[in-house]
Amino acid sequence: METGIDTAEPSREDRRDEERAGLVVVKPMPFNAETPQQALARPQTPTASFYVRSNHPEPELPAATHRIAVGGAVESPFTLGMAELSRGTLRSLVVTLECAGNGRTTMAPLPEGEPWTQGALGTAVWKGVPLAEVLERARVRSDTVEILVEGADGQGSKRFARSLPLSKALHPDTLLALEMNGAPLTRAHGAPVRLLVPGWYGMASVKWVNRIEALTRPFEGHYQKEKYIYDEVNGRAPEPVTRMRVKSLITSPEEGARVAPGRVVVQGMAWSGERRVVQVEVAVDGGESWKPATLLETPRPSAWVRWAFTWEDAVAGRHTLRARATDEAGETQPEAAPWNRLGYGNNAVQVRVVNVG
Amino acid sequence: METGIDTAEPSREDRRDEERAGLVVVKPMPFNAETPQQALARPQTPTASFYVRSNHPEPELPAATHRIAVGGAVESPFTLGMAELSRGTLRSLVVTLECAGNGRTTMAPLPEGEPWTQGALGTAVWKGVPLAEVLERARVRSDTVEILVEGADGQGSKRFARSLPLSKALHPDTLLALEMNGAPLTRAHGAPVRLLVPGWYGMASVKWVNRIEALTRPFEGHYQKEKYIYDEVNGRAPEPVTRMRVKSLITSPEEGARVAPGRVVVQGMAWSGERRVVQVEVAVDGGESWKPATLLETPRPSAWVRWAFTWEDAVAGRHTLRARATDEAGETQPEAAPWNRLGYGNNAVQVRVVNVG
Repeated sequence: METGIDTAEPSREDRRDEERAGLVVVKPMPFNAETPQQALARPQTPTASFYVRSNHPEPELPAATHRIAVGGAVESPFTLGMAELSRGTLRSLVVTLECAGNGRTTMAPLPEGEPWTQGALGTAVWKGVPLAEVLERARVRSDTVEILVEGADGQGSKRFARSLPLSKALHPDTLLALEMNGAPLTRAHGAPVRLLVPGWYGMASVKWVNRIEALTRPFEGHYQKEKYIYDEVNGRAPEPVTRMRVKSLITSPEEGARVAPGRVVVQGMAWSGERRVVQVEVAVDGGESWKPATLLETPRPSAWVRWAFTWEDAVAGRHTLRARATDEAGETQPEAAPWNRLGYGNNAVQVRVVNVG
Repeated sequence: METGIDTAEPSREDRRDEERAGLVVVKPMPFNAETPQQALARPQTPTASFYVRSNHPEPELPAATHRIAVGGAVESPFTLGMAELSRGTLRSLVVTLECAGNGRTTMAPLPEGEPWTQGALGTAVWKGVPLAEVLERARVRSDTVEILVEGADGQGSKRFARSLPLSKALHPDTLLALEMNGAPLTRAHGAPVRLLVPGWYGMASVKWVNRIEALTRPFEGHYQKEKYIYDEVNGRAPEPVTRMRVKSLITSPEEGARVAPGRVVVQGMAWSGERRVVQVEVAVDGGESWKPATLLETPRPSAWVRWAFTWEDAVAGRHTLRARATDEAGETQPEAAPWNRLGYGNNAVQVRVVNVG
């Protein structure tokens, strides 16, 4: 009998709806969604508002029975349950993830692919065990060049799988993550276990990890060689997409906002994969009048740093605001990013239009 | 005694407020404002919603006493009152005007200058007397190369003044316009008389015409040689800004709109100065899948043509729409317009983001 009365346990569908309520949907199936702009104004991104990028429908992997197969060019292959993994050396890291396709809609000509504006971005606290610890137990052979990490999503040659150079795989910050923001991973974010590759665009942080394999030759799978490459269509061989390019965004005032004349505080964040941001500048109106913003936190190489700029003398009318970041290697955001066929790595300076008065 | 009761005659301030209520203000003084996006969806733009671009505060010229001085390299200089002018051969033309700086905010790097998005654009019915008729009366000398038209706005070397090549000045569609949309010009649009140069960007259509002069040498004033030039900063001499480049806009659905799945009608307009538009194409999502739209009117060389495209199978999720126009000379809108220092002539294909479902 259907009573219309809620049962104590929310249904799977209800849970899924709840998980998706705080997001801006880009594609319902497979589910892809952006972090809302208001959520980006927070120092860390709540899980319910954290962008989701999936190439395939989300697998459902029960934590109690899921096991990762660890093998390939190793002395001691084994399978690893989640309870066992969680008894490893747990580390917590604050890490910003950005989709490689974030900002694609402002590239010209507009490439194919998910039409991400600027919300395929978020920062969370991630907790997990270094991949290196698992690889150590497997005793990787000396002729290993890459570590392949495969997800449970997709099938055949389109199974989602990515490799990392051995050095990045062994970095102590590269985690097999079990938790996000103090709770077990949600299904959308790779439950029960995902890779977390700080400093690299999100495609490297394989969700729903199924298999880890030491490779003696570079991986040439679909998501390694046909996607996530910078193909500038200029006769040169495409480069792989790896670390996040230096970038900044303005979070306040919002696009099209109306603010009072006088003093206006402009805020945002900036990041650069594997590198610290050392400077953020803001330009009010067009031209080259860049002025330094203040970094509000100690810059870290794997997470955005928040910044603020005081616009002292805003007068009535429409104005533009731009921010640009520079990292410790001296790289500065370009005004236009190099175009590439698949639309990755757009770290161009963004123009924000605001109204004063 | 202040009664708080409205008097029969609205004050000058009230009239001005009313004139400005239908506009999106870009700068309060001198007054600059865009046509709202909804108004652009109409075949013609109501005067109260027609963009205003002024380089200086608006002069107030009483129609009863205002006279235009006609002189320079002419046999018969004279001054011309408005009543006399209106007894000339009156012509009515439907003409699209676009500010040369329209779309500046999507140019990278962002140039200085008014931050026009895409609303510095409008189409009206203009009524006036051919400039040629006035020049004929003055008997322009055979060594004349340009006709200078000066406004009453600005002072000294910054007085707003522009010249036209003799051939364009003598074109029967180049008018001294007295009316806009069936009513005398409003102050913001150049009352009591403005030049109307069909097919050219708006700067050529000098408002508040004060003086007309036949020149035997090219004019080198501020608004001719220092502004309204394509300075691509590439070592080549800047070109003057003249005719409007081929361009199109989508008016429906609006940016960020949510529409039902299935059949979606996409509408907009396209124009190319002095040329007929012959084709408009629409692309749904990124890449190069352009499909023809239907022109809803017979294309004219001086006004936008409206078009429609039926997107047959819109599925849930975020999508992008783009339109691109081609004119009778075979010119097609570029995906990115050539950058220039002052930010003019941006006719790049625009990306519209919409949500289905």
